[in-house]
Amino acid sequence: MDRRSFLGKAALGGTAAAASALAAPAYAQGNRTLTLVTTWGRGLAGVHDAAQRAADTITAMSDGSLTIDLKAAGELVGAFEVFDAVTSGQADMYHGADYYFVGQHPGYAFFTSVPFGMTPGEIMNWYYNGNGRAYHDELGEIFGLKSFLAGNTGPQAGGWFAKEIAGPEDFQGLKFRMPGLGGQALGRMGASVQNLPGAEVYQALASGAIDGTEWIGPWADEKAGFQEITKFYYTAGMHEPGAALSLATNLDVFNELSPAHQKIIEIAAAEAHQWNLAQFMNNNGAALQRLQAGGVKVLEFPDSVWDAMGTAAAETMDQYAGDDLYDRLRADYNESMQASSGWIQRSEGAYRAQRDRVMG
Amino acid sequence: MDRRSFLGKAALGGTAAAASALAAPAYAQGNRTLTLVTTWGRGLAGVHDAAQRAADTITAMSDGSLTIDLKAAGELVGAFEVFDAVTSGQADMYHGADYYFVGQHPGYAFFTSVPFGMTPGEIMNWYYNGNGRAYHDELGEIFGLKSFLAGNTGPQAGGWFAKEIAGPEDFQGLKFRMPGLGGQALGRMGASVQNLPGAEVYQALASGAIDGTEWIGPWADEKAGFQEITKFYYTAGMHEPGAALSLATNLDVFNELSPAHQKIIEIAAAEAHQWNLAQFMNNNGAALQRLQAGGVKVLEFPDSVWDAMGTAAAETMDQYAGDDLYDRLRADYNESMQASSGWIQRSEGAYRAQRDRVMG
Repeated sequence: MDRRSFLGKAALGGTAAAASALAAPAYAQGNRTLTLVTTWGRGLAGVHDAAQRAADTITAMSDGSLTIDLKAAGELVGAFEVFDAVTSGQADMYHGADYYFVGQHPGYAFFTSVPFGMTPGEIMNWYYNGNGRAYHDELGEIFGLKSFLAGNTGPQAGGWFAKEIAGPEDFQGLKFRMPGLGGQALGRMGASVQNLPGAEVYQALASGAIDGTEWIGPWADEKAGFQEITKFYYTAGMHEPGAALSLATNLDVFNELSPAHQKIIEIAAAEAHQWNLAQFMNNNGAALQRLQAGGVKVLEFPDSVWDAMGTAAAETMDQYAGDDLYDRLRADYNESMQASSGWIQRSEGAYRAQRDRVMG
Repeated sequence: MDRRSFLGKAALGGTAAAASALAAPAYAQGNRTLTLVTTWGRGLAGVHDAAQRAADTITAMSDGSLTIDLKAAGELVGAFEVFDAVTSGQADMYHGADYYFVGQHPGYAFFTSVPFGMTPGEIMNWYYNGNGRAYHDELGEIFGLKSFLAGNTGPQAGGWFAKEIAGPEDFQGLKFRMPGLGGQALGRMGASVQNLPGAEVYQALASGAIDGTEWIGPWADEKAGFQEITKFYYTAGMHEPGAALSLATNLDVFNELSPAHQKIIEIAAAEAHQWNLAQFMNNNGAALQRLQAGGVKVLEFPDSVWDAMGTAAAETMDQYAGDDLYDRLRADYNESMQASSGWIQRSEGAYRAQRDRVMG
């Protein structure tokens, strides 16, 4: 996924119109309404759903004493203005993918996804039982945010190509759409990386303006219709192996809430993480079956491509080295990933391979 | 894990003493206290933690208007009396592993784990986005329960053996501790299956009274000390590939609660599922590293053993066929597992294998 693709037309230039609509937090009969701005166009399946889920759950569990008023991208502020809107107090909360805010601090990348980073299960282990949440808090202290993971797209697919990929040399000059740090890594491999907004990708692929594209996963990719243009689909990718979403509240606002309301936000966010991950993964499973039945060829990159991707990803992550918090965060993240991965591979990884072999 | 091993001495004969302590639900200043009985000894790491987590979260999010009074196994009723205690209205809620209640209905097995069944991620997909929760509700309508998943141990390890396993013939006459449906499957392979309570397993293994044992996973197994007796550890197993735990409320009690309190129970349970899974998986990762550093040999069963396990597991699951609900539930579970597994294997499975190969 990328930044601009989640914007509808309404997302552009919404700030001025919205400014007059901003008011002091509403208190009525002891009730409180918090304004939640998001980086997603209203109704965008999956990612908007996660924001709506958290908002509705908070409102319902508090019996309306804490009501969340969701403003999708462009309804109050533009999608990528949400971070500044919340840290400045213009809005109370945002829901978005924290790697959009690597410009504010590169450590935010780890709270969505980094190339060759954690799978969703590994993120859960690190965030809910390891040090992940503490590092999220440390970033929040700098910017005045209280953040919680609150959604996850699962691993994003490697993408759609016009032909099979034989080796890393096939990326030389390849016009490929991939945003973010993953796109940077692909650029280091020689690709001509394009950051097209979502609405333009189908046409660009159909016309040959680009040679290939990644999007999200089978559920969203099928909706986009890429299978109508090409049948070569690489499911595993290195760029976003488990993209988490965050719900961040202005820290002053959060600290003034009652302990019960604080706990409601924390737990609603965590539940949205699991619920949204299930939504993406379950729908991806069914969509992949449909795509395969429709003649899509599901492929994996050869080892030589993964090797080149690994080198490029490490260089991409190294560019931020030297910042104390980034370095500590990265080291902790990698240590947790290694420990988690060992057990996951030795237990469910080995089990699933055998089950699929035995049961078919 | 098994039934009896989670019982402390206090679990025995607790019913009579507890009966006089039972009273009508407490209402004070509009507040409500629900009594939660569990199948776990107080303080048992991981599984008791999941029950306590859900209880504390409900109490905190409701600001004490819905307080959960947790009674561990034996404190009010015995561990395996919790189902009857809640369906009869003697207690309000239970937390336990629903496969303990296959005697009430074999469909309950699917809400903990079945041999060759779902991994934790697959259970999430089925339960939170597929039909899993609807089937849990259908069982609940029969018995008068409103159930939600509320914990998960992750995949349980294959177990500890005195020597390496070369083929299915090595299970002939092998004295091995494994409870439940997995144990039944192992018995069909010729093993002499023992259902020792947890407190006796270490001594039985040390004395040679049993040739091997499964327990839970590296975190709990290390605490039990099996690595002091044998160094042959099979991490992947077929018996409980992702053991979920449930929080069940008496249906009449649940229906009388306010919508906000109902939502609080639902979301607290779901959050406990994710939190507890992270707790087990993260601690297992660290414990596996310690066990390997201490000289434990981590092994996988050969294909021939998995083949024999697959046949035995299918026979075990077939024994309940003919019950309409069981048959529908099993078909839906298997269909969901197949769809989920396809995407998981093609995305994070393939990705993790490459990442571990490239990054080491």
